[in-house]
Parts: sequence; C-alpha cells; structure tokens
Amino acid sequence: MALLRSYVSGRWHTAASDGAPLHDAVTGEEIARISSEGVDMAAALDYGRRTGGPALRELTFHQRAALLKVLASHLLEHKEELYALSAKTGATSRDSLVDVDGGIGVLFAYSGKGRRELPNAKVYVEGPVEPLSKGGTFVGQHIAAPLRGVAVQINAFNFPVWGPLEKFAPAFVAGVPSLIKPGSQTAYLTEKLVELIVNSGIIPEGSIQLVCGSAGDLLDHVTAQDLVSFTGSASTALRLRTHDAVVRNSVRFNAEADSLNCSILGPDATPGTTEFDLFVKQLVAEMTTKAGQKCTAIRRAFVPAALLDDVAQATAERLAKVTIGNPANPDVRMGALAGLEQREEVRRSLKALLDAGDIVYGDLAKVDVIDADPERGAFMSPVLLRADADRAEPHEVEAFGPVSTLMPYTSTDHVVDLAARGHGSLVGSIVTADADFAREVAHGVAPWHGRLLVLDAEDAKESTGHGSPLPGLIHGGPGRAGGGEEMGGIRGVLHHLQRTAIQGSPRMLAEITGQWVAGAPRRTEEVHPFRKSLADLRIGDSVVAGPRTVTQADIDHFSEFTGDTFYAHTDPVAAAANEFFGGIVAHGYLIVSFAAGLFVSPEPGPVLANYGLENLRFLTPVFPGDELTVTLTAKQITPRENAEYGEVRWDADVTKQGGESVAKYDVLTLVAKQ
Amino acid sequence: MALLRSYVSGRWHTAASDGAPLHDAVTGEEIARISSEGVDMAAALDYGRRTGGPALRELTFHQRAALLKVLASHLLEHKEELYALSAKTGATSRDSLVDVDGGIGVLFAYSGKGRRELPNAKVYVEGPVEPLSKGGTFVGQHIAAPLRGVAVQINAFNFPVWGPLEKFAPAFVAGVPSLIKPGSQTAYLTEKLVELIVNSGIIPEGSIQLVCGSAGDLLDHVTAQDLVSFTGSASTALRLRTHDAVVRNSVRFNAEADSLNCSILGPDATPGTTEFDLFVKQLVAEMTTKAGQKCTAIRRAFVPAALLDDVAQATAERLAKVTIGNPANPDVRMGALAGLEQREEVRRSLKALLDAGDIVYGDLAKVDVIDADPERGAFMSPVLLRADADRAEPHEVEAFGPVSTLMPYTSTDHVVDLAARGHGSLVGSIVTADADFAREVAHGVAPWHGRLLVLDAEDAKESTGHGSPLPGLIHGGPGRAGGGEEMGGIRGVLHHLQRTAIQGSPRMLAEITGQWVAGAPRRTEEVHPFRKSLADLRIGDSVVAGPRTVTQADIDHFSEFTGDTFYAHTDPVAAAANEFFGGIVAHGYLIVSFAAGLFVSPEPGPVLANYGLENLRFLTPVFPGDELTVTLTAKQITPRENAEYGEVRWDADVTKQGGESVAKYDVLTLVAKQ
Repeated sequence: MALLRSYVSGRWHTAASDGAPLHDAVTGEEIARISSEGVDMAAALDYGRRTGGPALRELTFHQRAALLKVLASHLLEHKEELYALSAKTGATSRDSLVDVDGGIGVLFAYSGKGRRELPNAKVYVEGPVEPLSKGGTFVGQHIAAPLRGVAVQINAFNFPVWGPLEKFAPAFVAGVPSLIKPGSQTAYLTEKLVELIVNSGIIPEGSIQLVCGSAGDLLDHVTAQDLVSFTGSASTALRLRTHDAVVRNSVRFNAEADSLNCSILGPDATPGTTEFDLFVKQLVAEMTTKAGQKCTAIRRAFVPAALLDDVAQATAERLAKVTIGNPANPDVRMGALAGLEQREEVRRSLKALLDAGDIVYGDLAKVDVIDADPERGAFMSPVLLRADADRAEPHEVEAFGPVSTLMPYTSTDHVVDLAARGHGSLVGSIVTADADFAREVAHGVAPWHGRLLVLDAEDAKESTGHGSPLPGLIHGGPGRAGGGEEMGGIRGVLHHLQRTAIQGSPRMLAEITGQWVAGAPRRTEEVHPFRKSLADLRIGDSVVAGPRTVTQADIDHFSEFTGDTFYAHTDPVAAAANEFFGGIVAHGYLIVSFAAGLFVSPEPGPVLANYGLENLRFLTPVFPGDELTVTLTAKQITPRENAEYGEVRWDADVTKQGGESVAKYDVLTLVAKQ
Repeated sequence: MALLRSYVSGRWHTAASDGAPLHDAVTGEEIARISSEGVDMAAALDYGRRTGGPALRELTFHQRAALLKVLASHLLEHKEELYALSAKTGATSRDSLVDVDGGIGVLFAYSGKGRRELPNAKVYVEGPVEPLSKGGTFVGQHIAAPLRGVAVQINAFNFPVWGPLEKFAPAFVAGVPSLIKPGSQTAYLTEKLVELIVNSGIIPEGSIQLVCGSAGDLLDHVTAQDLVSFTGSASTALRLRTHDAVVRNSVRFNAEADSLNCSILGPDATPGTTEFDLFVKQLVAEMTTKAGQKCTAIRRAFVPAALLDDVAQATAERLAKVTIGNPANPDVRMGALAGLEQREEVRRSLKALLDAGDIVYGDLAKVDVIDADPERGAFMSPVLLRADADRAEPHEVEAFGPVSTLMPYTSTDHVVDLAARGHGSLVGSIVTADADFAREVAHGVAPWHGRLLVLDAEDAKESTGHGSPLPGLIHGGPGRAGGGEEMGGIRGVLHHLQRTAIQGSPRMLAEITGQWVAGAPRRTEEVHPFRKSLADLRIGDSVVAGPRTVTQADIDHFSEFTGDTFYAHTDPVAAAANEFFGGIVAHGYLIVSFAAGLFVSPEPGPVLANYGLENLRFLTPVFPGDELTVTLTAKQITPRENAEYGEVRWDADVTKQGGESVAKYDVLTLVAKQ
C-alpha cells in the first residue's frame, strides 16, 4: 500500500517505515499507510520561517488575496479528484459538497474580504488616531504586522478539505506560512489537496507544508512568533495547550473543540407550525450529515415539556426515512463513520448516555445498510435519546456520531440554564417565530456560545443551517468548545498579526502607517493633487481652496432649492432658541457642497469619480457672513490589483475665519493609475 | 502590627494567623502583616458571580462608565491618603504621581471612552451586518455580551494603585466584577485603595473584591466564564497559565510580564543633536523612575557603534547627578527598591550580566544616600553596563531595578535582529529624527513589540515617554512579555465580553442587537419620526419621501451655485467618455441635499441638529430626469446619561425609479428625550 507523503522543506517526503494502515470507511479495505517518520520538524518550521514567510511578506494583503482566488478557481477545476477520495471517508456527495466546496468557498470568501476590507499594503492600520497630547505633537495609532513564524494547523479527521482550508486562508492573507497536520484517518484526502496546491505553483514556495502522520516533536520547536491552532477533542486540546514550548514562549494557541451544542424549540412552535417542522428537519439533518461527526452537530435538543412527545414522534418518523449505506449509491442519505474505531467510541459514549435516558429511535447494535457490508464498513443507526434535563450525562458526554438527546424545559429561564450546562458551545439554534423569546434566549445564552442561529419561516429557505460555520462569522466558543475563535472575516487574519501601538509625532506616525494623519506635513504644490495619477500622487499632497463667504441669501436659496427648510435655516426666532445654534445657520449639506465647489478641479483628469464620504462631523455652526476655506489632503492610497485605477481617501477640513474647523470628513474617490 | 484585611463576600476579613511581615522600603521598619488565611476563595468567586455580576449587568455601558467617573473624582479627592502610604514603598512623589494619578487617570479615560465609543446598551454590536444570502432573508452580525464570571486580577508589587486600576476599569465598564490580588510587598497601599472604593458606596456591592496575601486555592475554582489576568514575572505567568482549572476550562488568561525592552538611537542622532540628548535623558529616567522597577523599563540600549563612547559618557554624567535616598526628602530623585529581597535579586541578576559586560557607571555594593540608612532601606546605585551585543546575557537576564546595558550596533538590519533577541517586549523606543530609519526599524521590530515610541524633537515636549502605558493604547507584548494585551481603549473592554455571531432574518437580528438592519420591518406611521422624542421613537420608525425629479436645470444650477463644475456634471462629451458615468450625472452632494429636502420636518421639534453623516456610498449614477425617493429609518438610539437629549442614527436609502439604490448612508442627529 502507498505511504502518504509529507510536503516539508520544499520536497515530498516518504517515510522509511511501513506506517500505520488507513481503511476505507465503507468497505474496510486498507487504502493507504501513514507515517511521518524521518520528517525533520524543526527544519520544516525553520523552512517556513525562512522561505515561506519572507516570500509572503513581499506581497501586499491584496496581492495575497488575489492569489487565493486563483488558487480557489484551480481547486474548483480539480474538485472531482477530491470528491473521489472523499467517498472513501464515508461521506455522501452532499457531505463532500460541505467539505470540498465549502473549503474552496472559504478561499473565495477570504480573497474577497482581503481585497475589500484590508489595505493594499504590507501593514494593517487598526482604529483611529488616538490623540495623546493637547498640542497635537504626540499621537498614537495601532498597526498590525504579520508574525514572523509559522501557523501550525492541527486538524481533525472529519473535514479533511474544509478543515485545513479554513485555517490556511486567513493565515495566507495575513502573510504567515502554514504547516498543516491533518487527522490521520482521512489524511489521504488532505494529501491530495496539498498536492493540488503545491503542483499548481500558484502560491509562493514555503507558504504551505504538510505533515502526514504523527506530529512527533513538532511542538517542541515552536517559538513566540509561531501560532498553533487545533481542531479536535477537548482532551487533546488540553495536552497541546500545556505543551512546554507553547506555554514557555507564550505561543498563540487556538482550540476549537467539539461541544455539546443545543437546539431550542420555542413555545410558539407547536405541531403544524413551520418552525416545528424546521426544528425536526434540522435536528435530523444535523444528526445524519457526516454521520453526525461534526463539532457543531446538535447533541442536546431542548423542547417545551408539553411538546416533547410530539417532537419525539416527528423526529423518529423522519429518522426512519434516512437510508444508510454506501455513499456512492445515490439512494443513500447517510454514509459511514470515519472508521470502526470511531464507531466503537460512539457506542461507548452512547452507553454512558443511556444511564440517563431512553432510546426514542435507533439501535446501538443493528443497522440496515444499502449496497455495503454493515460489519466491514463503519455504519451505525442514528440514535435519538430522551432524557431528564436534570441529569448530568446529556450535558457532558458527547457521542461523536449520529446521536442526539431530547430534553424538556419548563420556562425561558430554565432553558437558558440548561444551555449553559454545556459549559461552552460552538453554536446553538433557537427555532421560533417569537422575536421576544428569541431575544431573551439569545441574550441569556450568548456568553456561552460562539454562534447562534435563529431559525424561522422567514430565513429558513436561505439559512445555511446550524452546523455550518461561515467565513464571515466567528467559529469557536468558550469553555468546553476550546475558548478559541477562528475566521470571523478579517478577525481571522488579525489573529496572525501582531498588534503594535505606535506613538510619535504625526510626521513619524504617517511615515510608519503609510497614511496621512492630521498634523503631519502637507505638500501644497502648484499642481492640484486631482491632476496627479496614482503614479505621482503621494500621501500629504494637498490643496487649500477658498475663502468663500456664506451669505444669508445662499442659505435662503439653498432652503428653497433643496426643500430643506428646517427651522434652523429659515426661522430666526426658532433658530435662536436652539441651544446648539443660537441663530440662523447654514445647512450642513450647503457647507460640504460649497467645499466641493472650492476644491474641485473640473477638467477631465485622473480623478474619475467621488464614490462616497465617511466620518463627516459638523463641529461648529456656520452663520451668515462666515468665510469657508477647505483643505483637502491625500490620506490613503489603495491601488487595485485588477483595475487601472484605485481608491484615494482624502482628508477634508473645512474651516472658517480664525481657523476653527466647521466640518471634517473623508472624501472617497477613484483615481487612475496613469 | 496591623494585619491587612481582605474584602470578600461583602465584608472585611481579617486572618486568624499572625501573617508575614511587610517592611517600609526606606526605613526597614515593619509596617503591616499580611495573610489571606481563612478567606473562602470559592465563596468569594461565587459572590462576585451572584452579586456583583448581576448588579453590573443591570446597568448599561454608559451607566457603568458614568459611575467610573464619579469614582475617579472621589479617589482624586482622597489621593493624599494614597500618597502617604506610597512613600513607604520607596516611591518619590514623582513615582507616586505615576502610580496614583496615573491609575485614577485610567478610570477617567475609560469613563470617557465608554461613553463615546460604546452604545448606551447592555450588549455591544460589533462590525457590520454580514450578508449571508442572495435574497437578504438570512444575515449575520456579531454581538458581545459580558462574561458571567469574575475577572481575577493578580497584580505586581511595583504599581499598587495603577496596576489594579488599569485592570479594574475595563472590567467594570464591561460589566464584569473584579477580584484583586495585589503583590504582597506593597499590598497595604492597594488595601487603602479598595477601602476608599468600597466605603464610597459609588459602585455596586460585589463589583470589587480584594484578597491580601496568598491566592491560596483561588484558581482551583475558576470556570469558563471567569478571566485571569496577571502582571509579574515570566515564571509565575507560566505556572498560572498551566494551572489545571485554567486550562481545563479554557479560561481566558492574560499575562503581562516584564521584558527586556530596548531603546534604539538613530545614526543621525550624533552628540549635539536634540535626539542624542533625548536618548540619554530618557534612558536615565527609565533607569531611575520607580528605581527601575518597571516592566516597561529600558534594559537594552542600542547605539550606533561609533556613538557608543559618547553615549556612555553622557549617560554616566547624567546618572551621577541622580540623588538617592529618602523619597520624602524633596532633593531626592530616586528612592528605594520595594524591599531588601528585591535588592538581593537585582544584585544576583547583575552578577550574571557582568559575565558579559563591564560597568560604565555605578556600584553593586555601595550607594550614597540622603536622609536614610543605606543598610536598612532597600537602596542601590543605578548601574549602567556596556556589553558586546552578541552575548546572550543582556538579551535574556533581567535585573528588575535601576540597571541597563549599552550595546553597539552596526546597521539597521543588525539592530532589528538585536531587538528581536529579547524574544518579545512590551515596548521599544526609536530615538531619531530620520523618518526613513524610524519606518524601517518600526516595521522590522513591530512583530516583537506591543508598543513602539518614536522620540524626536517634534514630540519630545508632549511625549509621555517610553515607560508609560496609556489607556488608549494596548499594553502587553508577545513571547517573553507574556503574549497578552491589556487596555487599548475599547479593546480592553472587549476582552471581558464573549463575542457571538448571530444569524437569522433581519427582523430577528434587529430584535437581538437592538439596532435596525436593512430588511427588518419598518413602521411608516402618520407621525413623521422627526416629531417623536426619544421617549416615543423606536428603531424601525420610518418616513418615505419623494419622488423628486432631478432635472438638467437642477444639475446646471447646482454647478453654478456651488462652483462644483466637475466635467461629469457640465461637459456631456467628457462625461460620456467616463467609464463610470457615460453621460452627465447629478452631483453626489446634490442627491443628498435633495434627499434632506425630502425627509426634513421643518418646524421646531425633538430633532435638534444633524451633527454628521457616515458611510455614504454613491451606488449608481443619477441622470437628468431620474426621480429620487428617500427612505429614512431610525437605526440606533443612544440616549445620553448626562443630557436631555441623545443620538439617533438614521438609515438613509435614496432610490430612483425602479427602486435601485443610488445612495446609502447614515444620518446622525441629536434628539430630545422629551
């Protein structure tokens, strides 16, 4: 049998030893062997730091995001190769869709978010400038720069494609190389994935590495600039978290552990309502998708006591329709567990759960299968239990398979308490059309959850469901769920960056952040900055225009022309009584319109459009007779990777006689590169 | 001698045992004894969770922030009581200013930030709405809610007032009760601080507790909803971080450990320059403030090789002027270390450093003191060393006292490498007037630092200096510095909240976040929402106004009136050639001005002023003849605690015939409460 290879230090490595056998989850046949023997873990980390890291840091956030899109498209073209291997893990084609297409989808999502929400630069600037002094010569702001180490990513067996990709994508956009260690049982699929990536030549050498087999002494070599992120069991998380090198070097450690997630049925959702059906349908889907082998699966289903019999009956009926067997057979709805060992473990946990409850549906020992041998393949029947909610076991014992427990609750407070007894979960569902119930439960259980889904007739059609983490939302949860957080859009990129507060003069701050800040030097040259293309424009390039006097006639006219006859612009007596004005004032929109008339450079040129405006604040009223001057300064320049133009953000400061600012805002424009 | 008391479970507790003696750092006299014997740690945590937590969570962010200001003012009135005790720790009055006034300043800062940057609500809404579906019926957003546990705050001896307050302030604003364990040597000052706070009756009972003495089995009782934050040595951090209950429950753990911080002199800063003098002056200040007992003090001073002799000489001359002795004497510039044990430890570390370098200034054994007994008080001479930068010791051995080491560097890359050899620092300084050097070094060393100060002639006068963490900036650093992060403005509050992604229909999302989101129900009643005070206004209250046709004459007139004659509004041929327009288009400012004219309700009423506008995007061009309609919807309502009005954020959506959005933005108004 073929030994799975590792990809480390720039080459494919095959272990010298025989390795351990891996079996087809459906047929039980040996399909590969696995061993990391001979992999020099210290050298692999060092290679990532010396080769992958510098190559990634040569690129901007946008350039890395653009590569991610190319990579995603490449994988999409080759997804059938992944699907073929995925079936051997026991996955149905619907399961494979979640794993393979879901994983590729994360790459697309991070590519888009990276380009929309990050600067086209090598350093991220976070948050506003903090004034640190009265005179304004000393200011602060935070930057975030890529860690100089390797993101060590230790994955679980249940999502051999999505799992590695959801960790890799944010690390890659951040500029940090990845070293992936997949769960052994399904590592042949991850090996294929990494082979497709490496052979594509799309991403810089060293930015992805793979260790198939034991992690060996890998963690002994991590330093303060490396990260370790782990998905799997709470017990393994505990062991890795306390690893000597991890704690000694304060290594960033993120754990995402399977938890006892709950689904809560609202009291309004009686039989016959859409929400009742949604609850049952989702519960069955979560029990049977990936044969229930999901960290996010529903393990605890809380139901109003009066509805428990109805839910039990409806769920059992629906479970009875779930066909089990060879996932290659199109009639099969649920495939196999990942292996016979997994099935044994589920059965052991089930026995503990049975001390506290009874079986509503299913059989521990027996299962009818289609097109497969129930003994050689890791098949089992879905098992729905029913238990007293006061017992400890249903809140603490997890059977990582197609297993869930129904429990009754008696009040909103009661179900909030019950949800918390899971000691921290990745996700919870609230199935209700009652917004008050949804709000009360959500506020009550939020501190114990990383994600909450409110499911009802309004969103059901488009809902991605309880079990699906999404790249734009955080994935992780407190306590039992590992206390970690992954993805969440740009938050997941920031996990790989070191945040650093920069303090200094505005000039120095602008130099370090690459963005102009108030107080930094301005260059007011003869050339209007609107006449400069991105090739010539620099932050700090400015134009000062004005003054223009705002007359009473201007205000009267603007009121009439626009219809904005708010009393502060039209009624001297009422305006005088307004504590903020004390008399007739100019419209805010008049001020910014006049300012635009002052700073504009009318002829065709590199400035293509004004596409927006941000952070506008009117700071002091403008009275008839006041003179306005505007200073416009190039603040941030963001060339686009895939267009002949980019975004320029301008600082606009409108002052009146004496120099007082009356309005400050950012003007957003598109400017041609040439 | 008096035993220091603990304040736990709502009462002052005095240990039954004799306790360990605490000594005046200056005279060596025993001034108090300390013991936590008999404190029921589990009960104290439980009391915080059951009493302090619920009382705090009854309040909004703004209400808690307002209490913090009252508390800060109260402490300011009683600061002389704190100063009196502070002198016994060896602190000069300038040192006490940093500790006492600095600590009170953090309360004021968090009070201000809490009111300015957080909603007046019980749940924080973070980030924009994430679209999760094409049809818009399924959307997501993140909320953050207070953890339901206790913030266990384990502090160091060196800042007995600032230390506890910089941890307490963000926890309090977050709504999480604190349990403070001060460093024993100076716990009498923290006891006084907590006594002032408790006796003031300003904050809810249970929101602050104090354990003087050993933490005992405190950490055995922490759960997933508690937090532990620690300031002190790396070795203690390691022990706490791996405590069984902490790791088993994935307890949020933050460490801030003293680190080998550096200061880097730029090659431009030759003798005679302002920056040369600033470098020397700051180095001496950091060596001698608090007798060098600061986590942030400069331990490594990197100087261009050619300037090393000059710097050594100038620093030695300045150190020679530092008078040492009884801090009560106004002639004294540097007081005592916290105690004789501390001095012994510093001397031990100094001996290790001497293996790698030579003394430029100072004496290990001998010190001249004013107004004090050099043997009974914990006095020592500042010691400046000079070492080869390639040796390991100066980068690894910390003497936690008035000790620093000068080392030469040869190039920018060299000094970046040297800075990194500290394996992670809280703060670094770059002293230079050369912006290119500052940028290169800052980008190079940022991943190893939590904070970087660029010091030059421009900011020196207003700079708060290398050693001072500020509430608006993060405090913490990677690796050796503990891998943690405190303060940083609102970031420090968020550390105490659980972030939860909420998924659902727009209606459910609005209900849970308390903010209107696109797609959620609008109420368009007969009453214009501008006629409603905060008492009546509800999110979702809307007005739809229009249509109004934008004519060619309007565009021509607006160009002429405002002076905004950009070619896209005035030159049909040039406008047609612009890829974004394809013809004459209306000014963006015209669109928003007309929209205001449509949605305004002119007569005096509860809406007092439009103070700004945010997130304006022009989405599609408006051509002559297009008809504009605007829908304005109350999105977020923020009543002020200390005024008769509040802020209302309105969602503005300007559409044209056919329903396409041409502009979207938020309108910010002030609205009366009644």
